[in-house]
Order: sequence, then structure tokens, then C-alpha cells
Amino acid sequence: MLYQKNLDLQTRRRGTVEITDEVGRIVRDSGVQSGLCNVFLRHTSASLIVCENADPSVREDLERFAARLAPDGDPLFGHTLEGPDDMPAHIRSILTQAALTIPIVQGALALGTWQGVYLWEHRVRPHRRSMIVTVMGEG
Amino acid sequence: MLYQKNLDLQTRRRGTVEITDEVGRIVRDSGVQSGLCNVFLRHTSASLIVCENADPSVREDLERFAARLAPDGDPLFGHTLEGPDDMPAHIRSILTQAALTIPIVQGALALGTWQGVYLWEHRVRPHRRSMIVTVMGEG
Amino acid sequence: MLYQKNLDLQTRRRGTVEITDEVGRIVRDSGVQSGLCNVFLRHTSASLIVCENADPSVREDLERFAARLAPDGDPLFGHTLEGPDDMPAHIRSILTQAALTIPIVQGALALGTWQGVYLWEHRVRPHRRSMIVTVMGEG
Repeated sequence: MLYQKNLDLQTRRRGTVEITDEVGRIVRDSGVQSGLCNVFLRHTSASLIVCENADPSVREDLERFAARLAPDGDPLFGHTLEGPDDMPAHIRSILTQAALTIPIVQGALALGTWQGVYLWEHRVRPHRRSMIVTVMGEG
Repeated sequence: MLYQKNLDLQTRRRGTVEITDEVGRIVRDSGVQSGLCNVFLRHTSASLIVCENADPSVREDLERFAARLAPDGDPLFGHTLEGPDDMPAHIRSILTQAALTIPIVQGALALGTWQGVYLWEHRVRPHRRSMIVTVMGEG
Repeated sequence: MLYQKNLDLQTRRRGTVEITDEVGRIVRDSGVQSGLCNVFLRHTSASLIVCENADPSVREDLERFAARLAPDGDPLFGHTLEGPDDMPAHIRSILTQAALTIPIVQGALALGTWQGVYLWEHRVRPHRRSMIVTVMGEG
């Protein structure tokens, strides 16, 4: 069985947006009971992560860490066409994921108790972000 | 063909544990000759990596690098509920992988000569870690 | 449907080599219309990334960023057997990807407009690099 669906969303600013429920709904709709679910983000200045889903301070610390690692306006960067957050956004994307592949067990994403799936917007301003969710397996 | 199996292990401390043989055994048991093997770790303070498997000093250097990049007790972090290694563990996980998808060729993981699959425990103390291995392909 | 193909290339130096067209050709040859394409690199001192494909300065900045993050000859590293770029190459690989899984829609890789697939050579000298491309899905 194969099931494919677009998943689009509008980000509001730099930061994480949980998409666990949206992806889980597509898995349910697919009817697949055992298999794999691939989420692919079609952009290079946002990314996907699996992150702790209980305490929001984890994602605040993560944001601060990323800002220290690849600061906006870093003089190291020559690619500043779209602003000081342009190249840091590409770096953050490359150090995280464009694609996540998660197992499906008993018709649901087999995430651990504390795992959530997040879209991480790396640009300061809002963007429309488009993903493709592909579900493969047995019904 | 689809084959799914849990793989659990007890870590002893921060550091890497090779799981190449354990994953390879599941691939053999599956009977799949050509396809894909997905390993998914159900935690956010440990991760999976493909790493050089010959010289242990590679993984010692990797550990030192991670400790410099995201030091335990870094004042940058507000999320310190579970101790000074809590947030660094989340950071290390996000910068590496919760999921690895490896091709199967002639009934075995098609890793390169120097590639091993490792669970990387990021917490200082031992933890029980649970993975799901999903094998899909042709028999 | 399952289709598997080797993809080999010779790198010329440290830096990125676009492989989007080569992978896309294998997808076309597979006849798969909807599904997933996994690219796996069989080495631990080079890696795969999805990166902005329009402005080469992005990949120059990325190279400079990696050189700052894990500098050649860093005294932190004990594993220097193959030279000062040996351990930095392993670090860069682990922080990026050995495997990428990309959806196939209407018989083609469903990359975003600005996404390219790149092999990133992390060693200073040229190397022969070998990949396995696995295509699964419906015809």
C-alpha cells in the first residue's frame, strides 16, 4: 500500500511548529497498519526535527543554541541576498533534516512518549512551507 | 515484504554502542533480499549515527567535539530539570539522527567497509533505549 | 516495485558535487511513479545534503562554516592517522547525512524549486565515492 499527501502550513516567525497530529492523521487516513511514514520538507531554510514534546523550554534553548552556532549577520557569510538570517537558515537546515522516516506500528506513528515531530522555521519572517507525506506498508 | 522488530538495549553511560550486528540479524531474519531497513530510536536524548568502525579514537574525538559544541551545564540553557546533561543531550540528538534508512542488497545491510551503525547515548547515566527496525523489500 | 542501482563518482577535492540529475535519472529508469527514493553513501568522510541550488555562494559559506566548526588540525582530535582533515571529515559526516529519503511524485523526485541533492566531500584530496540508490513504490 502507498499513500501520498501534501501537508502545507504557514509559519508565523522563526521557531518550531508541532506537526505530529497532522502527520498522524495522514497515517490514519492511509489505512496502513505496519510500515513507514516519510515526511519531506520542500525548502532549504526550514527543516524537520524530532524533539522533546513536553517542556517548551527545550525548544527555546534549541533556538538559542542555533543562534549562537550560526548567528544572523555573521561576517563569515557572503550569501546575504535575502538578509542576515538567510545563510544561517541554510546552515540550520543542513545540520538538521529535510526528511524524516518514522515507523508505523498498529496503524499509528511509533514515536516514543516524549517525541514530537516539528517543522522548524529558520527565517525570521513568516513563510508558506510545503511538505509531502508518503506512507508505505501493509494494511 | 514487510518485517518489523523491536530492538532494545541498556546503555551504560554517555557514549556509543555499536548495533550493526543486531540490526543485520533482523535483516537476515526478515528474508528480504533487496530493499530498505529503517532503524528508529524512540528517544530524544540519545541518537543514531553511521560512524567509522575501525579506530575507537574516532568516537572518542566525536565525544569531545560534542562536549565542546554543547557543554554540560552551559549557562545558555534554561531547561536543566534533569541535570546539566539534559539539554546538551537534546541538542546532540537533534544534530544527529533519530532515524536511519539503509539499503539492503543481497540480503544484508549494504554498509561501506568502514561504516558501523551506532546508538549514541547522550545522557551521563545509563538508560534503557528502545528502537524499532522496519525492513521492506523483495524476498 | 523495487529498483536498485549503484551510483559512483570521483570527487576532485573538498566541496559539494550536485547529484540531483544522476539520482533523478535512476528514478526515471525505475518506472516508479509514486514512492520513495533512498540515496545512501557508503563512506564516513563524505556525506549527503539537500541544499539551495541557485547561488553557489551558499555552498561556499557552508564550507567556511564547517571549517570553523571542526577545523582541520584541531588539537582536540587524537585521531589524525590520515592527516589533519581526517577527523573533521568524520564530524562533518555525522552532523549531516549518510542517507536521504526523498518522495517520488509523478515519476520524479519531488524536490522543492530551490533544492538540490549534493554529495559533500569532506577530505581535502580526491576520493572515489560509492552510493546506492533504492527506489520503491508504484509504477
